[in-house]
Amino acid sequence: MLMDDMGWGDLGINGDPARETPNLDAMAREGMLFTDFYTANPLCSPSRASLLTGRLPIRNGFYTDNIHARNSYTPQEIVGGISDWEILLPELLAENGYRNKIVGKWHLGHQKQYLPLRHGFHEFFGSTNCHFGPYDNKSRPNIAFFRDDHMIGRYFENIKIDKNQQISDLSQSYIKEAINFITTQSDPFFLYWTPDSLHAPTFRSVPYIGSSSRSSSYGDALRELDAGIGKILDTIKQNQTLANNTFVFFTSDNGAALVSTTDAGSNGPLLCGKQTTFEGGVREPAIGWWPSRIPHSTVSRQSATIMDLFRTIFSITDIPMPIDREYDSYDLSPVLFANKRIDTNIYYYRGNQLMAVRNGDYKSHFWTFTNPLEQFKTGINFCPANFIKSITTHALTNYTQSPKLFHMIRDPGERYPIPENSIEYKSVIHKYINLYNKHISNTIPGKPLLNWCDKAVMHWSPPGCEALNMCLPVPQSKPYRCDWPH
Amino acid sequence: MLMDDMGWGDLGINGDPARETPNLDAMAREGMLFTDFYTANPLCSPSRASLLTGRLPIRNGFYTDNIHARNSYTPQEIVGGISDWEILLPELLAENGYRNKIVGKWHLGHQKQYLPLRHGFHEFFGSTNCHFGPYDNKSRPNIAFFRDDHMIGRYFENIKIDKNQQISDLSQSYIKEAINFITTQSDPFFLYWTPDSLHAPTFRSVPYIGSSSRSSSYGDALRELDAGIGKILDTIKQNQTLANNTFVFFTSDNGAALVSTTDAGSNGPLLCGKQTTFEGGVREPAIGWWPSRIPHSTVSRQSATIMDLFRTIFSITDIPMPIDREYDSYDLSPVLFANKRIDTNIYYYRGNQLMAVRNGDYKSHFWTFTNPLEQFKTGINFCPANFIKSITTHALTNYTQSPKLFHMIRDPGERYPIPENSIEYKSVIHKYINLYNKHISNTIPGKPLLNWCDKAVMHWSPPGCEALNMCLPVPQSKPYRCDWPH
Repeated sequence: MLMDDMGWGDLGINGDPARETPNLDAMAREGMLFTDFYTANPLCSPSRASLLTGRLPIRNGFYTDNIHARNSYTPQEIVGGISDWEILLPELLAENGYRNKIVGKWHLGHQKQYLPLRHGFHEFFGSTNCHFGPYDNKSRPNIAFFRDDHMIGRYFENIKIDKNQQISDLSQSYIKEAINFITTQSDPFFLYWTPDSLHAPTFRSVPYIGSSSRSSSYGDALRELDAGIGKILDTIKQNQTLANNTFVFFTSDNGAALVSTTDAGSNGPLLCGKQTTFEGGVREPAIGWWPSRIPHSTVSRQSATIMDLFRTIFSITDIPMPIDREYDSYDLSPVLFANKRIDTNIYYYRGNQLMAVRNGDYKSHFWTFTNPLEQFKTGINFCPANFIKSITTHALTNYTQSPKLFHMIRDPGERYPIPENSIEYKSVIHKYINLYNKHISNTIPGKPLLNWCDKAVMHWSPPGCEALNMCLPVPQSKPYRCDWPH
Repeated sequence: MLMDDMGWGDLGINGDPARETPNLDAMAREGMLFTDFYTANPLCSPSRASLLTGRLPIRNGFYTDNIHARNSYTPQEIVGGISDWEILLPELLAENGYRNKIVGKWHLGHQKQYLPLRHGFHEFFGSTNCHFGPYDNKSRPNIAFFRDDHMIGRYFENIKIDKNQQISDLSQSYIKEAINFITTQSDPFFLYWTPDSLHAPTFRSVPYIGSSSRSSSYGDALRELDAGIGKILDTIKQNQTLANNTFVFFTSDNGAALVSTTDAGSNGPLLCGKQTTFEGGVREPAIGWWPSRIPHSTVSRQSATIMDLFRTIFSITDIPMPIDREYDSYDLSPVLFANKRIDTNIYYYRGNQLMAVRNGDYKSHFWTFTNPLEQFKTGINFCPANFIKSITTHALTNYTQSPKLFHMIRDPGERYPIPENSIEYKSVIHKYINLYNKHISNTIPGKPLLNWCDKAVMHWSPPGCEALNMCLPVPQSKPYRCDWPH
């Protein structure tokens, strides 16, 4: 279960004063809450590619080198998408008898060759892209919505979203689709449930309007997903075989998008938000649930990432991992099933740049960046209310000669850089410099897949448009280097 | 149980990633956690005076008008202290058969006429002041430590504190003293347990050194108090009569003192810290515990204050309240025993100035202030990592003509002022302007008690010094107006 732009602090059990995630809080009581769980990138597409490949974006190609250290994703003009060479989680599962379904946002490319059914999924209900729009179908087409390998409509046309009132039944469809899938499988299955109603502009169905005391569409959408997760878990619990054999993991693709001000989640005490490699950009709400195997009501302070789910799932299922490539994935089984701690390195990337490294209690920033000053001056702020001298920099700042060091337990908000002349700094920093240098020299970047854009690849004529009579004329191809401002 | 400078975010159950308050978290599971509980002032002495009088500092005199809108307290040169005219919680309880004891920091004045046994307590074990020092006993005396109405030693002399290593057995003494008191009472009792080891410079006993994964003396001290609270509650639980009849409330005197950087607590997602009227300065960790009467595992989002404990306790004990004075105290019984919500107004003062008002979901700032720019430039920062334009002002800024408005549920971090041209602002703001104006016109300030300082009143010759041969020569009295920089 992968949320979109949900923040660490949105969980009641992580301290949100509104405490409006009763089902997720119950899930944590029935399972293991992770306090130090990370995504692989502070933006959606690379994070999702890493979840499904077990590899950092710098390896699986979900980055750009058009510009140094900027995040990139898959808007509808993107030419690239997930590489055929990558072995996705569902591909390996499919080879071993699993039935795989994705419900929600794919975001690993929308051209035919990138669709989920070409990459290990048997079923798809959702969209390749965000629910952006509406568009005029002339300068930009509305985004296609898919059932399996063909479109069944477009957002704002067949898939209704009232953008002004922020209303849609889509999350309800995703909840029903999940429950239908779960209750009709005879084979083992993998369900990748990834609703995107928490991505601004957020939406919720009519019964949830005003359901949150936050008085925001975001708050309502969160209540709706929380309730849906409760229903999905109930579905599993009602079948003893399912309940005994189903591992559920809940997390989010990146930190809350604080730039959205009134329509965003909360990163709690963490610094900054989505797009940044500060904790608010990359540390996620995360819960592991498997009542018969994971100890109940446990809190794990294990540093881990979304990529670890890859190796963990293959460890649980006893399926051998490919040995022809590098993985950035640890087996979390000892953590999940025995509440042990393992030694992990966390690498924080922004685009093609390794920005920071965490191991154990410390995190060291080798580069810092929020967003460019000229953009900040227009009101775009990834760090509202946050300002730390020399840390929340509006220029990409190179600290490789004197890295910034934070103690992540004492100071999870990255407020107090440890003074460089302190004994603590001097006794610790070399380890992190070594980790940084070693990772950079040992990591062979994959070909960057998010460099090129082209209006011709947009959702003019997606697979299935003919049957619906919804094909739009495709403009002439004019590839250009995408502009990545963040 | 009143902590010193503990922050809202320090509770594991309020989301601190270190999750190192297992006993307090268990206390919350056995009782009611308050998410929106406030102190009466962002500084220690006024907050404590308000707890024991049920009245705002502006009424009970724990403020200064030497300077506009600055916090004041009771250092050892203070001339003033709690007024004889005030009726303290223990005074009323004593008249009704209760045995009252304070263990820990008093802070309502240290001259003879202000000592706890003159104001309703039967027993005192602790100090009138913070554990500051050591001093040279020439320019400043070391601070006295009391048993009942006489000193039994001085900090750094008889009461050992290793300031360099941040070690002391004092919290253990306070835990033992509490347990001894509880287990030896035959009459009803009131125990005011107020250890000050979380006030910088923090300290902990040897077994707790390194016990916290925060790697800080603060973290260790918090673990020690958390363990002590577990022991005290166990003591109550082991006696069925006690367990059935004991109401325990846990909170803190003000927000975490973020100015202390590595030796401070956490305010979680809240803005700024101690000394300010932003949420980080005044919103507190708070738990009500009475297993036989308070519903278990409940979270109350009731806005309430430390002053409400006054009326609540007299409601529970059925003791009539004085009718000759104004109180700022609501009866929380319907909240505690039936999880109801009541309508409350929260008034945020800094010194003699009403700064902000909360009712329901909104808080409106009529004045803003962090600390003076010249002080800020010397490195004193009440809002590390926080900067919000026009909100975290370094000048006392008057917004009474266009108050700032925040939605406290959607935006507990006070990050996003609601735009003044929005429908939300326009439909809400008048209520808060009315509350502000009405409160100011209806509130008759008490005589300010914290205006005058005098070196002659310091701990040269406290009561009991003769018997110990610890009296120091008292310098000539030279009263002067205290300097209150914050």
